[in-house]
Amino acid sequence: MLHGPNLNLLGTREPEVYGRTTLEEIDAALVAQGKAAGAEVRCFQSNHEGELVDRIQEARSWARGILINPGALTHTSVALRDALLAVDLPVVEVHLSNVHAREPFRRHSSVSDVARGVVTGFGPLGYELGMRALLDALDDASGA
Amino acid sequence: MLHGPNLNLLGTREPEVYGRTTLEEIDAALVAQGKAAGAEVRCFQSNHEGELVDRIQEARSWARGILINPGALTHTSVALRDALLAVDLPVVEVHLSNVHAREPFRRHSSVSDVARGVVTGFGPLGYELGMRALLDALDDASGA
Amino acid sequence: MLHGPNLNLLGTREPEVYGRTTLEEIDAALVAQGKAAGAEVRCFQSNHEGELVDRIQEARSWARGILINPGALTHTSVALRDALLAVDLPVVEVHLSNVHAREPFRRHSSVSDVARGVVTGFGPLGYELGMRALLDALDDASGA
Amino acid sequence: MLHGPNLNLLGTREPEVYGRTTLEEIDAALVAQGKAAGAEVRCFQSNHEGELVDRIQEARSWARGILINPGALTHTSVALRDALLAVDLPVVEVHLSNVHAREPFRRHSSVSDVARGVVTGFGPLGYELGMRALLDALDDASGA
Amino acid sequence: MLHGPNLNLLGTREPEVYGRTTLEEIDAALVAQGKAAGAEVRCFQSNHEGELVDRIQEARSWARGILINPGALTHTSVALRDALLAVDLPVVEVHLSNVHAREPFRRHSSVSDVARGVVTGFGPLGYELGMRALLDALDDASGA
Amino acid sequence: MLHGPNLNLLGTREPEVYGRTTLEEIDAALVAQGKAAGAEVRCFQSNHEGELVDRIQEARSWARGILINPGALTHTSVALRDALLAVDLPVVEVHLSNVHAREPFRRHSSVSDVARGVVTGFGPLGYELGMRALLDALDDASGA
Amino acid sequence: MLHGPNLNLLGTREPEVYGRTTLEEIDAALVAQGKAAGAEVRCFQSNHEGELVDRIQEARSWARGILINPGALTHTSVALRDALLAVDLPVVEVHLSNVHAREPFRRHSSVSDVARGVVTGFGPLGYELGMRALLDALDDASGA
Amino acid sequence: MLHGPNLNLLGTREPEVYGRTTLEEIDAALVAQGKAAGAEVRCFQSNHEGELVDRIQEARSWARGILINPGALTHTSVALRDALLAVDLPVVEVHLSNVHAREPFRRHSSVSDVARGVVTGFGPLGYELGMRALLDALDDASGA
Amino acid sequence: MLHGPNLNLLGTREPEVYGRTTLEEIDAALVAQGKAAGAEVRCFQSNHEGELVDRIQEARSWARGILINPGALTHTSVALRDALLAVDLPVVEVHLSNVHAREPFRRHSSVSDVARGVVTGFGPLGYELGMRALLDALDDASGA
Amino acid sequence: MLHGPNLNLLGTREPEVYGRTTLEEIDAALVAQGKAAGAEVRCFQSNHEGELVDRIQEARSWARGILINPGALTHTSVALRDALLAVDLPVVEVHLSNVHAREPFRRHSSVSDVARGVVTGFGPLGYELGMRALLDALDDASGA
Amino acid sequence: MLHGPNLNLLGTREPEVYGRTTLEEIDAALVAQGKAAGAEVRCFQSNHEGELVDRIQEARSWARGILINPGALTHTSVALRDALLAVDLPVVEVHLSNVHAREPFRRHSSVSDVARGVVTGFGPLGYELGMRALLDALDDASGA
Amino acid sequence: MLHGPNLNLLGTREPEVYGRTTLEEIDAALVAQGKAAGAEVRCFQSNHEGELVDRIQEARSWARGILINPGALTHTSVALRDALLAVDLPVVEVHLSNVHAREPFRRHSSVSDVARGVVTGFGPLGYELGMRALLDALDDASGA
Repeated sequence: MLHGPNLNLLGTREPEVYGRTTLEEIDAALVAQGKAAGAEVRCFQSNHEGELVDRIQEARSWARGILINPGALTHTSVALRDALLAVDLPVVEVHLSNVHAREPFRRHSSVSDVARGVVTGFGPLGYELGMRALLDALDDASGA
Repeated sequence: MLHGPNLNLLGTREPEVYGRTTLEEIDAALVAQGKAAGAEVRCFQSNHEGELVDRIQEARSWARGILINPGALTHTSVALRDALLAVDLPVVEVHLSNVHAREPFRRHSSVSDVARGVVTGFGPLGYELGMRALLDALDDASGA
Repeated sequence: MLHGPNLNLLGTREPEVYGRTTLEEIDAALVAQGKAAGAEVRCFQSNHEGELVDRIQEARSWARGILINPGALTHTSVALRDALLAVDLPVVEVHLSNVHAREPFRRHSSVSDVARGVVTGFGPLGYELGMRALLDALDDASGA
Repeated sequence: MLHGPNLNLLGTREPEVYGRTTLEEIDAALVAQGKAAGAEVRCFQSNHEGELVDRIQEARSWARGILINPGALTHTSVALRDALLAVDLPVVEVHLSNVHAREPFRRHSSVSDVARGVVTGFGPLGYELGMRALLDALDDASGA
Repeated sequence: MLHGPNLNLLGTREPEVYGRTTLEEIDAALVAQGKAAGAEVRCFQSNHEGELVDRIQEARSWARGILINPGALTHTSVALRDALLAVDLPVVEVHLSNVHAREPFRRHSSVSDVARGVVTGFGPLGYELGMRALLDALDDASGA
Repeated sequence: MLHGPNLNLLGTREPEVYGRTTLEEIDAALVAQGKAAGAEVRCFQSNHEGELVDRIQEARSWARGILINPGALTHTSVALRDALLAVDLPVVEVHLSNVHAREPFRRHSSVSDVARGVVTGFGPLGYELGMRALLDALDDASGA
Repeated sequence: MLHGPNLNLLGTREPEVYGRTTLEEIDAALVAQGKAAGAEVRCFQSNHEGELVDRIQEARSWARGILINPGALTHTSVALRDALLAVDLPVVEVHLSNVHAREPFRRHSSVSDVARGVVTGFGPLGYELGMRALLDALDDASGA
Repeated sequence: MLHGPNLNLLGTREPEVYGRTTLEEIDAALVAQGKAAGAEVRCFQSNHEGELVDRIQEARSWARGILINPGALTHTSVALRDALLAVDLPVVEVHLSNVHAREPFRRHSSVSDVARGVVTGFGPLGYELGMRALLDALDDASGA
Repeated sequence: MLHGPNLNLLGTREPEVYGRTTLEEIDAALVAQGKAAGAEVRCFQSNHEGELVDRIQEARSWARGILINPGALTHTSVALRDALLAVDLPVVEVHLSNVHAREPFRRHSSVSDVARGVVTGFGPLGYELGMRALLDALDDASGA
Repeated sequence: MLHGPNLNLLGTREPEVYGRTTLEEIDAALVAQGKAAGAEVRCFQSNHEGELVDRIQEARSWARGILINPGALTHTSVALRDALLAVDLPVVEVHLSNVHAREPFRRHSSVSDVARGVVTGFGPLGYELGMRALLDALDDASGA
Repeated sequence: MLHGPNLNLLGTREPEVYGRTTLEEIDAALVAQGKAAGAEVRCFQSNHEGELVDRIQEARSWARGILINPGALTHTSVALRDALLAVDLPVVEVHLSNVHAREPFRRHSSVSDVARGVVTGFGPLGYELGMRALLDALDDASGA
Repeated sequence: MLHGPNLNLLGTREPEVYGRTTLEEIDAALVAQGKAAGAEVRCFQSNHEGELVDRIQEARSWARGILINPGALTHTSVALRDALLAVDLPVVEVHLSNVHAREPFRRHSSVSDVARGVVTGFGPLGYELGMRALLDALDDASGA
């Protein structure tokens, strides 16, 4: 699970908008959800595009899929896109808010067309749904 | 649950692409998922924009939320958008394929910014996730 | 008088925005306005583009002019435009809200340049003004 | 009632296109229409954007609404728009010809989205309809 | 053979432009042309996008190719495009007038790139040529 | 019959794509088709825009119509367009491949809107259909 | 002869760029050139769009043609365009500098397509050439 | 100091937005600020583009720099731009509101790239800052 | 004097539009005009871009300026532009018709910004004016 | 005070363009200016977008406002914008050069519309003016 | 080795910009470079698009790769692109100047995406590098 | 030698596409190539834009030129561009793949127009060619 810039502020910032769930709580829930499905989930947040690229590259050596909310980098980063292309793992993209209902530039994602699918607009629940979809994709691959 | 044009062919058409799940199976699963959550789910498919608008309007009298895959109308129909605005119910938009990885005109949705959120790219699983998100939204509203 | 998609909800939906005048009341007023001017007015609403096209075609056999609020189809329908071109009757376009002050895509009308004129933004009064303009156009044609 | 550039030529120029009604006749009819409704109507035409802005500003001290045909300034003047915003009176925009059926640049109005509504394409009758709509708006405000 | 909106008016409308051939005569000629080539031709016209989609879907069960003049839906309908993609039959697109010499929006077809080819601008003769091309394509497929 | 750049390679190049019909065979068939209809057909291919313009100009002195496949010049040459405008003969445009299903720049033709009609996507058969349409147009003109 | 904003500074400003010819000298030369051709030439410069519109309107009562360098208004004024359209006299547009070799926005003129022709880039000589073309146009009209 | 259209209303209009500082107070403060720095400051407001151009031209004879808030003309006037270019004095552009946070068309200024710098968004304080920057620029020029 | 594609047809084609002056007459007049000014004028027309480039290159060895009407190549040829840049002679561009009042693509010239100036819209007279301007430019250069 | 990429080179690079003031001198002056106003100013420069985001987030715990020159990140970074939105402090944006007079892509700032105001083009003085505006904004907030 | 329009002037034109190396010297060096690698190199320059297309077609019968500097045709010629596609040989594109640092239209190449690679901006050295890359590509193909 | 994001994966990732050459091998070859030419080559790869900017700045103190493959940052980073502008050393840009034959957004480089030249599409050989060009540029500078 990779979180992009500013997502570390979740839960402590504008709780009336983003709810009171913190990133730690989201991560803990994902780890639990993974464990229940027999999968190890590692979570990482960074405000640095380069560190996120580093982590995506590292995922080649141990992970079977990537759940990512690139935050503001969604709209600008070709480096994230290229890293996701390079590691060639199934990717699920998650957004807390409905990016289609905000500024026009948020409608463009440089990641979506290299992802398997996208979940957007459901707040913290979106992570659970995205993890569900990712695990499902891995099951399909295993069973094939 | 509203399905747009051509979705009635699901399961019998290009099974290597879309899988062998039929629309009937998807609908049955949604009804079951709803029942398990104490909600009645009604499903409807049409190739006619007008009929979909009619059904959205009717939903005002009995439904508490709308799950919709507008199919090809996603990209062209302002009438669907206006109907969804008019009935003022929470809306979740679902797409089977990853619309971001297809023709450029499929990147535009006239519905997304009036929906609560969007699930795209996960095949039939997407409906289950969307229903999950919709039920969750209704729970929140009830509990408020 | 032709009304496009979702206009049947008028009066019962968001009365604080659209007022409490229903479509039936608007239609009754137009019939009365027509009768006072010695003209028969027939009113029709549909959420189906095809039915509106059918009605426009039928108008060739009995009507002398068309008053139309295409609703959401204003922005997307070339079929309505072609039907209006085909019947070759004077057309007056009416909009309840000021389309110029809403989403950018509402600024485009595929009908306006084949209409004689447009009345927009005055609520139900706009229908009366549009009918007035249409009757005036017919008088001019008669007197010529 | 404010008339923009070149409208002073009305009636004496290209009568086969614009009809033989002069601006004086239009203004006289508007004054009469206003008087019948218990309202004082003052009319002003200018080829100078600055003078029109001056008059709009003056309207703050005595007028309750503005009927305006900005002529060619419709498409280019942000100053008129700002003046109308500043005086904060209900505004009705009128055009003699159907601007949607002419050069593409005439489709853009820098005034429409700050107006209450627009009447376009009906020749001199449009002024009467616009005045009607403006008086109606003032009645609503009075009665509120 | 599928005809889109407003094509039912053919022959009785503006005969100086579209000639005096009616849709019935065109259809009869196509049926005869098909019979001469040992093929059954069924013709259908509708002003409703949804009905045309229904018919395209039905064609899966009996037809070997589709000749279509989508009329105004050419420029706006993604649903027709998707239906043609779904049935996976050879498609030939025909237009009576030269769409390239009319309004700019008529230059775009949402169907052409999923068709085998296009015949445009030759009036009723275009149907005969399109049928000829479609039969030829079927012969090729049979002989392969 | 005028063929633009690179069409001389037809039949010997990529036969699995363009078939094994050579330009000579196409030309011979067109001459025969013309003879059968009592018309002389002259064929010319060039990789030089200027030579094609020369030939179009010469056509004024002897020809009654022009069948043209401008090849790559379709998308770039205003000179061909102007020559066709200048000689004022009926023009039919033919393309072997479906230009709508290739690179986006191939969708634009600088010739189509000055042609009578276009046949695209049917391989060598397209020439026969185009010739058919051209002869038909000449018959109409003769009979008028 | 009408000169737009800032042209009054000619000759005294940046002489190394615009030369040392003043507007007075240009006007005097034009009057002489007109007199030699038996035509009265009146010259007027203003920084006010409205005054230029006023003068164009006045020209209806006495002038047979208009030579105009709209200066900066070339690129922004629809009012000048409409005034020129309204007076319906032959118009010749002149620019001192080569507008095509400056900022991109100077390439657009809202006047050129309603003018008979344009002379651009030759400094003061351009006025003489433009007057020559205008007189020639008037001779043609007289002789017709 | 030059103020564009509608700025004369400052302080008396929408005080909750623009504050209660009037244009007279701003001008007085600027004169005082200038005097303290040994510079004479003259202030002028107009709703007329032409008058502002006139004043800019006059500034050649006595002023050493120009502080300007072109108001609505910022976005439309090439004439102001050309006048500023012609007088060749250092120019500082000031805006009361943050033009970047308003309608998209307000992001374009036809003046900024010929100005030395821009101060935007700080209300009346912006004038003081702009004057400070202009005086500083003049000091630099003097000291050079 | 260089003439682009299709200009050889001048005078014999559509005389009601282009007049009855032939290219030979225009060339003869230019030679005479040049001789009167002590300059040798050579004229050349071609439908081939390459030949025009050849001639522009040759002009380096004997000519002092170039008068050119690139015809249709105006809008498409970068090669002409580069040739004109390479020979580094003063260039005057002439067009018979007013390119600003025709199809939008004719508004773009790839030559104008490397020319000294442009004369457009005055028919054959334009050549005389252009030659006048070119000779004037050469005089200036000589006198410098 | 936050400085974006490459601003650390200030003063030692191209002194004829950027002057000889170093970033250290600018920072020292700002600290002094702050101290004089009773405010603590901390300065930070980084070539790393992520570090700037980190510092903006840290500012939540101690700062009352942010002065920022995002350098090249102005035009590309949504992450900075989101960080500034998240901390919800008054922001003043400063640029040394006049970004409006440079490459077109420098005209776009992803920060300006979430800032209180912008100072651009005045070199090092701009920082002082921006600090002045920021302190003023804080005073207003305090006094409210 | 194919050289496009105006490259024959190399070395004799603007030597301070393009250096004093002539096309003959470049060609001789390429022939020698080829000979050293056991390859025959033939060089050809033309100002005629058609002749370059002819030569590319001829290359099918004897050459194993193409080195090309299309000059101005880079930006406009689809015919060159199609010819390169038709002969199906490895292509290397070379430009003397850095096309990215010149007029915006030079950034577009209609050849680059069908070439193996591009070398741009290094003057005559670019040809040597391009030949090197082409020979390398042929070696790879041979060795495979 | 600077390598942008994800280039560290070279050789171990998708060897059928990118070959089996690793970044270490490329770097070693460049160091050797430099040594042979009497130049010290230092290589650095990073996934962090900021670190690349740091290194470019450091290059001022010891390097005479920069060879750079910015990877994904090519298309998004203004900071790299500004850093390259600031250090004012000759820059050569290299790309392994042919960026012109991939997604459209890869056609834009924010670095190319500040580089001396670009080598694209030749795989690892491109580095050797780029180094060759850079050394050549340094020789020229030394010899000058």
